[in-house]
This record gives sequence, structure tokens and C-alpha cells, in this order.
Amino acid sequence: MNLSIAHLGPPGNYSEQAALFYVNWLAKTQSKQPVLCPHPSIAQSLKAVAQESAMLAVVPAENSIEGSVTMTMDAMWQLDSLHIELALVMPIVHVLISCASSLDSIKTVYSHPQALAQCQAWLERFLPDVQLIATNSTTETLEKLETEEGAATISSQRAAQLYNLPILAAGINDHPDNCTRFWVVSLGSNQNLNQDLNQDSFQDLKRITNKRHTSLAFSLRANIPGALVKALQIFAQLNINLSRVESRPTKRSLGEYLFFIDLEADIQDERMQAALKELSTYTEVLKIFGSYNVLSTREM
Amino acid sequence: MNLSIAHLGPPGNYSEQAALFYVNWLAKTQSKQPVLCPHPSIAQSLKAVAQESAMLAVVPAENSIEGSVTMTMDAMWQLDSLHIELALVMPIVHVLISCASSLDSIKTVYSHPQALAQCQAWLERFLPDVQLIATNSTTETLEKLETEEGAATISSQRAAQLYNLPILAAGINDHPDNCTRFWVVSLGSNQNLNQDLNQDSFQDLKRITNKRHTSLAFSLRANIPGALVKALQIFAQLNINLSRVESRPTKRSLGEYLFFIDLEADIQDERMQAALKELSTYTEVLKIFGSYNVLSTREM
Repeated sequence: MNLSIAHLGPPGNYSEQAALFYVNWLAKTQSKQPVLCPHPSIAQSLKAVAQESAMLAVVPAENSIEGSVTMTMDAMWQLDSLHIELALVMPIVHVLISCASSLDSIKTVYSHPQALAQCQAWLERFLPDVQLIATNSTTETLEKLETEEGAATISSQRAAQLYNLPILAAGINDHPDNCTRFWVVSLGSNQNLNQDLNQDSFQDLKRITNKRHTSLAFSLRANIPGALVKALQIFAQLNINLSRVESRPTKRSLGEYLFFIDLEADIQDERMQAALKELSTYTEVLKIFGSYNVLSTREM
Repeated sequence: MNLSIAHLGPPGNYSEQAALFYVNWLAKTQSKQPVLCPHPSIAQSLKAVAQESAMLAVVPAENSIEGSVTMTMDAMWQLDSLHIELALVMPIVHVLISCASSLDSIKTVYSHPQALAQCQAWLERFLPDVQLIATNSTTETLEKLETEEGAATISSQRAAQLYNLPILAAGINDHPDNCTRFWVVSLGSNQNLNQDLNQDSFQDLKRITNKRHTSLAFSLRANIPGALVKALQIFAQLNINLSRVESRPTKRSLGEYLFFIDLEADIQDERMQAALKELSTYTEVLKIFGSYNVLSTREM
């Protein structure tokens, strides 16, 4: 069986790029041929894993400028038994792709809302009068560029190459340190996957990056003063650093939240075991997405 | 001078609706004629207040299904001296507007990403094969509907009336309790505003809703285990309920955050004064957006 990897499509976008980094890295230690499967949304990429029509999904979790990818958080909470195998941090370099002869002839710029937001200052400076149109993916409208006069897309250099389209301006993101953290997600209970993936690559990883992260999400039993603080305090008292806390609505009523937290410790760590036991006395639902390494694509 | 109120345009969207509720409520106690000024983005609506080209802005802060409106949070942090005068909670009821004869002939659905996300299950059930296109506002593409065959927009009943367009399906949001909290924002230091607004209406408000909320945002001095917990603990120990905590990236590097918190107490409250004094010893930057009442548009 092939190793099928779901990601947000169409090909050429940043999710596919992250999936390709992962595939190349895997190829160093294992022989299975991975197959990339583009999906129309992040939720559907994760659903493919939950329903076992894909072995893994590579999904964006957080961007350094625009923050959490809420669709990923919501789907991780709604679906069962998803497990984070690895986090990949990938630099994001946006380019403006267009068949127009110069910036002056551009009338419309299409891209994903996160990409438009990440180039906001550049757009205000160089293209103050164009119409900005949000799309589901940075590569969705590349096909339009040859037929629609004055159209441009913010996407990646790889997308320009893949679709054989000209780059009109490069490195247009407002913050040079723009990067996105992706998660490689599996079905925790998938035995086939463990047989399929050569675990040597993960053993290698444990050796080179000794810092493991654990992600989890929970809803609280009661919304009383200090309820969240009590839950977070458990980790602080055991000297476990909380690297991220994010709230999402429960979707039941305004003011009721779920919390997503990332911790700088492995779930096998004794302190973590004690902390999770205590945490469960405060939570209504607790979902543990597992422990994983964080790897920069620059090192892969 | 007129009382100018900035909001995200074009007219007919939910921000304009919230602004109209506010205007009608104001009209009960003061005589100034308010003028609504639609802006192309939420950031520009708030910038208009910061630069004194508008007296107030009405902006969405949080939706019960999709969570924080990150553009609002980021602009509140970046701009100086903004002050929240009032929070309005408004129910959101989406309708599908189209000139098509039936659902079968719809090919494309345009709307704001939050509206598309809020009708996701309905769209998957009734329009599984249509193309979904994200736009900057729920009313941006209404003009297209008469000329583009098979096009539809998710917007409000008011928008359909305003643009004289047919409703093909009503109440299509997946969660019936969908509501959005808007903020009425002023420039804290704007003396003219205080003269312009008849303060009686706010005095009335204090009488009818005795629960005041305070919003603030801060960055921390150091990212060490327990730094955020220590800051939140201050409020828990003084029995001040934290009704919301939201993290946003500092945009400097991945893993560095600002925190936005809402507290159930007035800033004039002695406990709050003590808490804020202590909080400032942990924070790098602390921005206090003020104390305000929360009003449901159902009561207005």
C-alpha cells in the first residue's frame, strides 16, 4: 500500500510544499512511495485521515504573522483520535504572479486571506487602488491569470514554476521572518501506519532534536473565576513551559470556550503524566494530540 | 458637527446593521444626526477613529461560532488611544440571496469567509458541488448577482431588501444561536466626542446593566514557565472573572504572543485598580481599552 498524504490543494501552495519537504525527508530512511492527495479544504484533508482514506495529512497550524489556523483547530477538536506525528516550521516567501507587463496594469489581486493580510503594507504601497479578492488557496486562481486582463495572484515561487507563469515582484511579505508551522497528522490508532513508516527516521529525530512538544485541547467543567488559571497553573507548578494558549468558541454560546495548549515536554515525562492526571479533574472533555518533534524545513 | 460612525462596508452587511442599532439607540436620548461612513476594511474603520476622521467605529470583535475577529484585535493593538464605549451582541441570521430560479441552478456562492464557515454544513448538504468564493464582506458581490448566471451570496435579510434581490433560502446558518459581539470604539482622548454624545444615554445604561466589562491587551517581559499564568492569577486571586483570553502573534517571531483579555469588572473597581498595578510589573506593553456595558440588540 502506498503512503497517501492529504493536503490542501491545488498543488503549488504552501501546504503542498510542506508535504513535499516531509516526503523528501521520509525518503531518506524508508522505501514506501508516498502519494500526495490534494483536498479542497483543510477540514477535508483531516477528515481523510480520520476516515482512513489517507494515511497522513499535512496541515497548517499557525503562522507567525496571522496566528492560528482556526479551521485546523476546529477540525482537530471535532474529529476523533487524530495524532500529531511531527511539526514542520517552513519560511513563507510570497511572490506576485501575473501576466501583466507591469504593476501599473494590475487591477485585481487574488489570494488566500492569510496571504493578502501578510502582504498588506506592500499592497497599500505599490497597488493602493487594486481590488483584493480572497480565495480558498493561494493557487486556486492561477489558471485565470492568462485569460483575465490585469489579474495577479500572491503565491509561492514554486507555484510560478509549476504553472509556468511570470513573477512580477518577489519577497513581497511585510515581515521577512514570516513562517508557518505545519502538523503532520495521523490516526493515532492506525497500526498499518506504524508498520509502513520506518520508525528509524523518528528515532533519528529524537536524537537530533531533544525538545519534544505536546499539544492538547480541553473544555472546562465550570466558567468560574480562575477556572482556566487553575488548569494552566498545574503546568507552571511543575515547571513545564506553556508555549502557546489559544481559545476557540465551543459554538454553543458566546463566551464559552475550548482551549488549545502546546507544552514543552513529552507526554511520557513523569511531570507531564502527573499534570495530565490533575488536569483531567478540571476538564469536561480533554483531547491529547500527542507529543512530537519540531523540525525546521531549513534543516531537512 | 455630525457624529460620524465608521464601519466595514458596503452597506447592508452585519457591521452596518450593528451601527444602525447603535444609532437608533442613541437617537432616543440625543439630537445630533449620526452619519454612517462605510470603509473598505475593519482596520481602516478603526484608523479613521485614530486619525479623527470619524468620531466612532462599530467593529466586530467576536462571533460565537468562528471566534475572534483577528483583524479587529490586531488594529486595536497597533493603533493608539482607542477606547471601547459599548459592546453590542447581535444575532446573525444568514440567508442565501440569488437570482437563480432554484438551488439546482447555483454554481457559485460568494461571501465573507466567516459567513461561509458558519453555513458549512448547510452548504455541504444542499449545495455540495458549488464553488465557494471568499470575499471581503457579505455584501461585496451583491451587484454581480443579476449579471452572473448561477451566482449566489450569503448575506443578511436586510441586504436582500436594500439591494432588492430575492432570498432563495433563509436561516441557513448551521448553529441557530449564532451571534456576533461588536465594539463601539472612540478615541479615548477625544474631548469633542464627550460633548457630542449626550452622556445621559450612558448613565441610563449603567443603571439597566450593572455588569461592566474591561478589555485589555499585553505582551509579557519574559517567556518563562508560568509567565502568563502569573499574570492571569492576579485576577483569579482577586475573584475577578476572566471572560475571555485570546493570544495573537507579536509578528516578531513564531511562538511570541500578545494576550487579549476581557474581565468582568469595571476599571474603577478597587480590586481592578490593584490588579492592574500588579499586572504592569509583568508586562512589556499594556494597553487598556477601557470599561463598557454589554447590550443585546434584542433589548435596544
